[in-house]
Amino acid sequence: MTNHEFYMDLALKNAQAMKGQTDPNPLVGSVIVNDNRIVGIGTHLKAGEPHAEIHAIRMAGEKARGGTIYVTLEPCSHHGRTGPCAVAIVEAGIKKVVIATLDPNPVVSGNGVKILEDAGIEVINGVRQEESQRMNEVFNKFIVEKTPFVTLKAGITLDGKIATHSFDSKWITSEEARRDVHHLRNENMGILVGVNTVIKDDPELTTRIPNGRNPIRIVLDSTLRIPLESKVLSDNLAETWIFTSENYDKEKAKVLEGSGISIFPTSGSKHVNPTEVLQILGEKLVSSVLIEGGGTVNWAFLENKLIDKVVLYVAPKIIGGSSAPSFLAGAGMDKMKDAVQLDNLSVQQIGPDYKFTGYPIYSHEGL
Amino acid sequence: MTNHEFYMDLALKNAQAMKGQTDPNPLVGSVIVNDNRIVGIGTHLKAGEPHAEIHAIRMAGEKARGGTIYVTLEPCSHHGRTGPCAVAIVEAGIKKVVIATLDPNPVVSGNGVKILEDAGIEVINGVRQEESQRMNEVFNKFIVEKTPFVTLKAGITLDGKIATHSFDSKWITSEEARRDVHHLRNENMGILVGVNTVIKDDPELTTRIPNGRNPIRIVLDSTLRIPLESKVLSDNLAETWIFTSENYDKEKAKVLEGSGISIFPTSGSKHVNPTEVLQILGEKLVSSVLIEGGGTVNWAFLENKLIDKVVLYVAPKIIGGSSAPSFLAGAGMDKMKDAVQLDNLSVQQIGPDYKFTGYPIYSHEGL
Repeated sequence: MTNHEFYMDLALKNAQAMKGQTDPNPLVGSVIVNDNRIVGIGTHLKAGEPHAEIHAIRMAGEKARGGTIYVTLEPCSHHGRTGPCAVAIVEAGIKKVVIATLDPNPVVSGNGVKILEDAGIEVINGVRQEESQRMNEVFNKFIVEKTPFVTLKAGITLDGKIATHSFDSKWITSEEARRDVHHLRNENMGILVGVNTVIKDDPELTTRIPNGRNPIRIVLDSTLRIPLESKVLSDNLAETWIFTSENYDKEKAKVLEGSGISIFPTSGSKHVNPTEVLQILGEKLVSSVLIEGGGTVNWAFLENKLIDKVVLYVAPKIIGGSSAPSFLAGAGMDKMKDAVQLDNLSVQQIGPDYKFTGYPIYSHEGL
Repeated sequence: MTNHEFYMDLALKNAQAMKGQTDPNPLVGSVIVNDNRIVGIGTHLKAGEPHAEIHAIRMAGEKARGGTIYVTLEPCSHHGRTGPCAVAIVEAGIKKVVIATLDPNPVVSGNGVKILEDAGIEVINGVRQEESQRMNEVFNKFIVEKTPFVTLKAGITLDGKIATHSFDSKWITSEEARRDVHHLRNENMGILVGVNTVIKDDPELTTRIPNGRNPIRIVLDSTLRIPLESKVLSDNLAETWIFTSENYDKEKAKVLEGSGISIFPTSGSKHVNPTEVLQILGEKLVSSVLIEGGGTVNWAFLENKLIDKVVLYVAPKIIGGSSAPSFLAGAGMDKMKDAVQLDNLSVQQIGPDYKFTGYPIYSHEGL
């Protein structure tokens, strides 16, 4: 590990510790070093409050002069509550700026660096870039693409099944793994399932952890088959939005809308169009969605290259069965070389289960 | 870790280091401690040569007197080339014997301990018992049940598939994982596949590592559909045995037997009877079998509770497809609570892939 990485890691740790409290701003951390000693640390605590660099500069005081500042994100060039951070760095007399990654927003990306370099400050970019980008993966995608960051979650057996051939699925994973899922729900603004899941399991789709935030419940239901007595329609624990195809039951839509349920038609004739679902969610400023669908919904999103992250809870058990459903259904890939690779895969043991987290690479031509 | 575990671990390490060179004897290691110092170590090197305890006693010489001996397996009570080890321990003046596990052979199990205790020696049993039993898992099963220890191996995607819906399977796992499989083949006396694998892939089923030992190639082929030009029938790289149902092609059997292929009918009317396959292999002194079957063969053995160990190479990729074959086909379990749990699961990264090794627990009533 280089010195740069050592100090950037500290900045990253302080940034990550604020997870969940900076929305809609990204997580950012900062460290100032002078003469081989840390003279200031900072982190962005809350939207509307100073950026990480400002806190670090204030802590360093006069010791910032001639020093090096580490920031997990390019210092901003815009006038917020405390003026542009890039200007504050120049004014503090800092000589060198090490950043993890440029601002993901194409409108301002590079502007902070330009201010610094125009003032004669040396700028080093790209130290722990991947870590910084992963930390703000939701923010980074949403600010550029204006559609939500999509996480596919499934609890599966080691043979990839989400139920037996008789559709029994209770329980595949352990209590510990199922509790972990509630943290995923808490981190996402929306939770998406197909109507078959609602019909079969009648789930609440809420976040059952202390201080948990309930995501918006998003149901794909091409014709509006959803039972009116479903919990997601009647329990008032969170908003429920239903996405349909063109050919939905107009009468039922009126009934649903009358009881406060939002209905969003998409242009699919038989199925809900998943790309349009995400476009609409983006317009509604939903920046993250957790898909907890069955195999058909999961495949529809994967087939359209719409999944950004995959989280699989794999239970150490096998059940077999040619007709037992896997977590991905549909047609599937033609060729093994077209398989969707999961990049940057991490594996974590949770109780008796294994949590695989990875990022799909859609380089294949098979789709 | 207690002192007992510390010394037993050393004995286990020396035992394991002899893997592959003690057949048909088990791996055994031994350590002698006196006055808190190790005064002797021993291991069984080769069938026909002294047991581990004898080597350790010889190394310790007079320092064995009053000491404690650690042995990974109960000292023997029978007269081999060097007399019973239990008697040798008594004669060496050892005061305490710590063993990992009793002899698995019910005919002699406990006899060694009896000799020691009758001579007034303190015996402690069960230190690192599981580790010792796993180390000799093949030996332990075969000596008791007279049927081979069965390992199921599969290379799968994270969604449990062994091929795409178009039956493309090249390659699921990495070169590193495929190389590891050859070590599994080297450790097993037989390798078992279904005839469909022979028809589709025409594999050699040999061990391609330096000094690799080729297992006997075992093909399940209920009617004798195997193509005469198959590599396993024509390449002379290893023996090939074919197991059939009652209703096999008698004419083709004659042709095959004429070219040195062994045919073993079983009592199945449509399918080969997997229980009988293992009984016949046991009679032929085949103590270990690696199953590299398709989903149907794999399920047939699992359904009959015949699999002792499962080794899965899981590639970090997903392919989807309702009709893409999983590594277990057949009917599958009815209820999730009947899932076969994999006990003592270990996970090891091999190249980009994950190797899961576990031991099925058939406690369910579903089968």
